[in-house]
Amino acid sequence: MAGNSIGKLFKVTTFGESHGLALGCIVDGVPPGLDLAESDLQHDLDRRKPGTSRYTTQRREADQVKILSGVFEGKTTGTSIGLLIENADQRSQDYSRIKDIFRPSHADYTYQQKYGVRDYRGGGRASARETAMRVAAGAIAKKYLFEKCGITIRGYLAQMGDIQCEFKDWQQVSQNPFFCADEEKLIQLDELLRELKKTGDSIGAKVTIVAENVPVGLGEPVFDRLDADLAHALMSINAVKGVEIGDGFAAVTRRGSQNRDEITSAGFLSNHAGGILGGISSGQKICANIALKATPSIEIVGKSIDIHGKDVDVSTHGRHDPCVGIRAVPIAEAMMAITLMDHYLRHRAQCNDVDAINYFK
Amino acid sequence: MAGNSIGKLFKVTTFGESHGLALGCIVDGVPPGLDLAESDLQHDLDRRKPGTSRYTTQRREADQVKILSGVFEGKTTGTSIGLLIENADQRSQDYSRIKDIFRPSHADYTYQQKYGVRDYRGGGRASARETAMRVAAGAIAKKYLFEKCGITIRGYLAQMGDIQCEFKDWQQVSQNPFFCADEEKLIQLDELLRELKKTGDSIGAKVTIVAENVPVGLGEPVFDRLDADLAHALMSINAVKGVEIGDGFAAVTRRGSQNRDEITSAGFLSNHAGGILGGISSGQKICANIALKATPSIEIVGKSIDIHGKDVDVSTHGRHDPCVGIRAVPIAEAMMAITLMDHYLRHRAQCNDVDAINYFK
Amino acid sequence: MAGNSIGKLFKVTTFGESHGLALGCIVDGVPPGLDLAESDLQHDLDRRKPGTSRYTTQRREADQVKILSGVFEGKTTGTSIGLLIENADQRSQDYSRIKDIFRPSHADYTYQQKYGVRDYRGGGRASARETAMRVAAGAIAKKYLFEKCGITIRGYLAQMGDIQCEFKDWQQVSQNPFFCADEEKLIQLDELLRELKKTGDSIGAKVTIVAENVPVGLGEPVFDRLDADLAHALMSINAVKGVEIGDGFAAVTRRGSQNRDEITSAGFLSNHAGGILGGISSGQKICANIALKATPSIEIVGKSIDIHGKDVDVSTHGRHDPCVGIRAVPIAEAMMAITLMDHYLRHRAQCNDVDAINYFK
Amino acid sequence: MAGNSIGKLFKVTTFGESHGLALGCIVDGVPPGLDLAESDLQHDLDRRKPGTSRYTTQRREADQVKILSGVFEGKTTGTSIGLLIENADQRSQDYSRIKDIFRPSHADYTYQQKYGVRDYRGGGRASARETAMRVAAGAIAKKYLFEKCGITIRGYLAQMGDIQCEFKDWQQVSQNPFFCADEEKLIQLDELLRELKKTGDSIGAKVTIVAENVPVGLGEPVFDRLDADLAHALMSINAVKGVEIGDGFAAVTRRGSQNRDEITSAGFLSNHAGGILGGISSGQKICANIALKATPSIEIVGKSIDIHGKDVDVSTHGRHDPCVGIRAVPIAEAMMAITLMDHYLRHRAQCNDVDAINYFK
Repeated sequence: MAGNSIGKLFKVTTFGESHGLALGCIVDGVPPGLDLAESDLQHDLDRRKPGTSRYTTQRREADQVKILSGVFEGKTTGTSIGLLIENADQRSQDYSRIKDIFRPSHADYTYQQKYGVRDYRGGGRASARETAMRVAAGAIAKKYLFEKCGITIRGYLAQMGDIQCEFKDWQQVSQNPFFCADEEKLIQLDELLRELKKTGDSIGAKVTIVAENVPVGLGEPVFDRLDADLAHALMSINAVKGVEIGDGFAAVTRRGSQNRDEITSAGFLSNHAGGILGGISSGQKICANIALKATPSIEIVGKSIDIHGKDVDVSTHGRHDPCVGIRAVPIAEAMMAITLMDHYLRHRAQCNDVDAINYFK
Repeated sequence: MAGNSIGKLFKVTTFGESHGLALGCIVDGVPPGLDLAESDLQHDLDRRKPGTSRYTTQRREADQVKILSGVFEGKTTGTSIGLLIENADQRSQDYSRIKDIFRPSHADYTYQQKYGVRDYRGGGRASARETAMRVAAGAIAKKYLFEKCGITIRGYLAQMGDIQCEFKDWQQVSQNPFFCADEEKLIQLDELLRELKKTGDSIGAKVTIVAENVPVGLGEPVFDRLDADLAHALMSINAVKGVEIGDGFAAVTRRGSQNRDEITSAGFLSNHAGGILGGISSGQKICANIALKATPSIEIVGKSIDIHGKDVDVSTHGRHDPCVGIRAVPIAEAMMAITLMDHYLRHRAQCNDVDAINYFK
Repeated sequence: MAGNSIGKLFKVTTFGESHGLALGCIVDGVPPGLDLAESDLQHDLDRRKPGTSRYTTQRREADQVKILSGVFEGKTTGTSIGLLIENADQRSQDYSRIKDIFRPSHADYTYQQKYGVRDYRGGGRASARETAMRVAAGAIAKKYLFEKCGITIRGYLAQMGDIQCEFKDWQQVSQNPFFCADEEKLIQLDELLRELKKTGDSIGAKVTIVAENVPVGLGEPVFDRLDADLAHALMSINAVKGVEIGDGFAAVTRRGSQNRDEITSAGFLSNHAGGILGGISSGQKICANIALKATPSIEIVGKSIDIHGKDVDVSTHGRHDPCVGIRAVPIAEAMMAITLMDHYLRHRAQCNDVDAINYFK
Repeated sequence: MAGNSIGKLFKVTTFGESHGLALGCIVDGVPPGLDLAESDLQHDLDRRKPGTSRYTTQRREADQVKILSGVFEGKTTGTSIGLLIENADQRSQDYSRIKDIFRPSHADYTYQQKYGVRDYRGGGRASARETAMRVAAGAIAKKYLFEKCGITIRGYLAQMGDIQCEFKDWQQVSQNPFFCADEEKLIQLDELLRELKKTGDSIGAKVTIVAENVPVGLGEPVFDRLDADLAHALMSINAVKGVEIGDGFAAVTRRGSQNRDEITSAGFLSNHAGGILGGISSGQKICANIALKATPSIEIVGKSIDIHGKDVDVSTHGRHDPCVGIRAVPIAEAMMAITLMDHYLRHRAQCNDVDAINYFK
C-alpha cells in the first residue's frame, strides 16, 4: 500500500531516489501563522549533508531546499507545504558495476524480490539520501514546538564501536564533526575512523536523543503510545536495529524497587522511564537511544550472489560513511520532532478542554 | 485523537478497562473463508491469562472470549469480527485505597494530567488486562498466516534479572510456567521469584520472539518498514522499554565486516539483521527482543504524591505479577502476528503481480 | 482492507449482522469529561428502532444499548467507548427460504461474489440494522457538539414519492411517525403507505438534514473538505443514491449572478451553498439532502437467479419498511454529527491558535 | 490535520497554490512494473488545461508534468512517485485589487477565518488549478486499471444551464471543446457561452462519468462503500454541489417494483443502481452524475465585505471559465479512477483468495 507517509495530524510524505532527479516531501497539517523560510530548514540539512568532513562520504550535495507551497509572505498558511531538493552530484557510473549484484546486508535483494524491479543506482529509494527530506520536515516541527512550548530536541553520538562518549555539554556537540558531547573522546574517534578507512571497514554506533520542556500529556494509549510511535519513527531510519526509551534494556536486570521513578512534592526523583509513563509524556526529559549497524558498503571483499543466483565477490568502492551513526544524529532529532509534533496536535484535538496541573513546588 | 487501533489492512481496535464490565475488540480486514471458532482464540488467551501459576497475579479470570460477528457457519465472512470478554473477578475494593494517589512509575499521573479524569480501578485502561484482546486478535492472524504460508510465531523468556535463558527447544517452552526454553534455568527462576515474593519486590525481563517461514517481501519502505512497524507494535506493550531487531544493540560495537550477512547460492550465511533488510523481510527468520521493566506495583514502600500534591508513601498489596515479562510472551507473539498479517495483506495489495524468485539451492 | 471505521479523530468502528448475537461499536477519540449515560444514546436509538409504528417493519427490537467502557463515574475518560446492543427478535427462519437466492437490488449477489461466502440471514452485515450503532455513536457527537458550541443537528422527511413535505417547524417533526415537518401532508403520507402495503410495494424518499450554530472554519481542503466528508458519510447509509449540499442539482441551471451568496456587513444574503465554501463551514446553516431508493424487498414478484445461476421468481414476505426513508432521518443526523465532530476536533488540532473574527453586525 | 491526501492503498497527496512556484503531487502505492512515462499523464492534463479554447479561461499554462521519482528505466518501481508542474503564467497583479476583499461564494472568507491568513493570489490553494495534479495522478490509475482489467473511465457534459446533452457516442466527446456527446447541442452551447461572455455571467453544469469493465467485488462495506468513496472523491472537486450514483434523486419518486434491477441468467435487466449494490461493484457499468455550480467570479457587480468588515462591491475581471463544468470532465474522470484504483488494491488485499463466478450466459 502506501508506506511513504508518517504522522497522522502532522503528516510527512516523501519521495525520491539516491540518483533520481530530486528528493521531495509534502508536510501536511502545519498550523497556520508560523514564520517559515528556507533558511529555517537549511541549518539541519547542512548538519546532515554529506561531504562536510573527512569522516563522511565525499559525495557533494548542496542539499539546498526549496519551499514550493504552503508559505505566503513568510508565514505558513495551513495548506500543504511542498519541499524539493534537486540531486546534483549523482555519478551513476559509480554504481553500474553492481547493477546485477545483491550487495550483502543491503536492500538490493529484498527490493528486487518484493517489487521485481529496482533502481540500483546508489540503493535507489533505500539509500539514506532519502532522509534529507525527513530532516527538512523535522525542522518545521522543531521550530513550531520551540516557539509554542520551548521544546528543544537535540542528539549526540553516545558510542562508536567500543568508544563510549558520555554526555558532557551541548555546546561541545556542535563543535566537532562527530556530534560528540565529550571532548576527551575526539582523538579516539578520529583514530578509529582513520583506521577504518585504511582497512576499508566500517563501524556501528549508538545515538542518544533528548527532548526537553515537553508538556505532560502527549501520547495516545493504547497503540499510539508516545513511546511506541517514537520506536516506529526511530526504527524507520536506515541502519537502525534497536530503540530504547529511557534506560531501555538496562531495566531487564533491575528490580521494581530500583527502577521505579519515585515522586515527591518537589518533583520526580529519577527518570528511568525516559519521560514517558503509560505511553504518555510525564513532563520529564524524553530520552531515547538508537543502535545503528555498520554500513555493509565496505572495501573488504564479501560473498554474495548476482541476479542470476551466481556466487560473486563484492567490494564497495563507492563513496560511503565509515560510520553512518554520525550523520544519523540530525535525522533522529527530526524523527523525534515529527513524532512529538504529531502528538502535540493530537493531544490538542482531544484534550484541549483539560488543563494540566502543576503539582510540584 | 483515536489511539486504540493498530494495523491498516488488518486493523485491530480495542476497548475496556481493568475493572470495567468487559473487554472488547473489533478485528477488521480478516479475509473471508477462514475456519474460525472461539476455541481457536482460547488457547493463546489461556497462555496469557492470570492465576494459572503461583508466579503470576492471583486474580482469577476465565478470559472466555465470545465471537459476536464476522463468522457464519464456522467461516469468516470478510466483515468485521467483534470479540468480547466479560470481566469476572473485579474486586474494586482492592483499589479504593489508592484512589487519590499517583502510584510511582504507573500511568496514574499521566492519565490524570492528560484527561483530567481517570478510572483508578486497577489502572483502568492502562492496565495490562487490556492486552487480552490483543492476544485474541493475534490468534486470528496467527491462524491465517499459518494456514496460508506455514508461518509460525513463537516466543520465549530470554532473561529474567541476571538469569539468562538460552534457547534450547520449543517443546520446553510450553512445559513450564515461565515460557523458558532452557530447562536448566527453571530452578533459578523459581528461586528468584520466591525471593521476590518474600521481599515484596519485582524484576525485569527480556523476551525473544521468532517468526519462521515468513516469505520475502513483507514491509513498506520508507516509514512503514516491517522493522519499524514491529518496533511500534512491540513497544506498545505495557512495561516494554526497548526493542531490538536481530542483534540490535550488539551492532553498535561491530564492524561492517563482522556484522554483514553474506549470501551464497546456498543461502544466507548469517542473520545478524534478524530477517529484515531495508525494512523488507528477507525470507530468513524474523527475530526481535523486547526489554520489560519490573512492575512498580510492589509492597516495598515508595515515595509519591496524592492528587492534592501531598507527599505520601505507597505500598501495593494488590494482586500483581512479580515479573510481568513472563505473561508478555503470548502478548508479544500476538503483536508480531498482527504486524506480519497487516504487511502480508499490504504486500498482496501492491505487489500481487510479482513472484519472488527462489535464488537458493 | 478495513472498511468498518469512519472518522479520523472521532473514529467510529462497528460490527454486527442483522441476525447475529449482537451489534457493537467502538467510539474512539471522545474528549474526556463529557457527562454520558446510556440514556443519552437511547433517545435517538428509539427514534430509529423498528416496530414503533404501523409504517415500519414489525420486527421487535428494544435496541437497548450498553456502555461497556470509556465512561467512569458518569464522565467520559478519553479512552475508547465500547457499545453493545444484543439482537433479540431474530426469527432466522424468515430467511431460510431465500438462503440460495440473490434478491434483486440487494447486496446478496455482490457480497457472495466479493467474499465467496455470506451471512444470508436478513442481509447479514448489509442490513440497515447495522445503522443502530451509527445512531448510538452519533448521539455522543451530538451531545458534545451541543454542549460545546450549541450545535443542533436535525432532519426531516422532505419528500416521499411525489409527496413533497416543506419544512414548517421542528416541533411538528417529533409529533408524527414520518419525521414530517409539514402537518398538512400527514394524511397523504398515511394513504400512500397504506396503499403500498396493500399492493406489496415500496417507495423512495428524500431526507433533509440541517446543522445550526456550526462555527466557521470546519473542513480540511482539499480532499477532506467538509462537504466531501459529508457526502461520504451520507452516501454510506443503506439505500442512499444521491447527496446534495445546499441547493445541489438546482445549481446546474443557475447563473453565477443568481447562485452566488452575497455578503454584507449584516451577514450573508442567501445560502445556496448550504453553509460550506471551499470545503469549509461558513458559519451559516449546513444543509444536505439525500435521496433514498425504495427497498427492493417487496411482495410483488420479481425476477432473479439463485446461487446456481438458475432463474427464479422472488417475492419478499419478511418484515420490511415500505419506505426506508422514514427511519433514515435519525441515521442521517447521526452521520452528519459524526462528520462535524471529527472536523471540530481536526480544526482544533491545526488551527487552535487562530480566533475567527465576527465580521457581522 | 492533514486533508491533502486521498486514497488508502493508492494514496494521492497534493500541494500547490494557483500562483505559487509549482504544483506537486506524490502518488504512493502504485504497483511495480507498470510502463509509465510523462506522455502517459500529459494527454489528460492537456484535456484539462486552460487556454485551449475561447470557452475557457485565457490563462496560458503548458501544464507540463515532470516525473521526479518512482519510475526507473520506463517502469514503476513500487516506490512513491513524485510529480511536478511549474506555474508559468501567474500574473499576480490581476489579483492585487481583491487582496483585501472576500469574493462572494469563494473560499476567501472561510480560509481567512479558518487559518487567519490566506494566499489571496487567484484563490491560492482553493483555486481549481490544484486539480491539475489530480488529473496527473488519475492518469496513472486509469492506465493501470485499463492494462490490468480493461477498465475504461470516461465522462461527458450532460447539461449546461437548461441545455440537456444526451449521450450519443464517445467519439463525439473528444471532437468538441465542451466534452459534449451530443453533436446537435454544440451550437446551443456555443450561443449560451457567447451570451454569458457578453453579460459577464457564468452558468452551472452537470457532468456524467461512466466506468466500464469494472469487476464485481470492489468496495468495502460498511463505511468505505464504493459509492460512499466515490461521493467523497467527486464532492471534493471545486464547485461540485451534488453527487448521484445511478439514477440518484430520480429514485425518490420511484417504487420498489420500478426501481429494482432484476436479474436473469442472461444478466441484469436494468441498472438503476449505477453498478453498485450494498456498496460493492456489481460488474455493471458504474455511473455517477455531479452538479457543478456556476463560478461566482463574474463581471456583474455583487455585494460583499472587505477584511475590515466594510461593505464593498465586487466585480471580477480576471481570467475565468464561464462554465467550470466543462473542464470538470477530466477531473471527475480522474477522481473516479483514483477511487476505483484504491478499491481494486483493497479488494486484492482482503479477497485475493476468492474467485468471482460468472453466473451469466
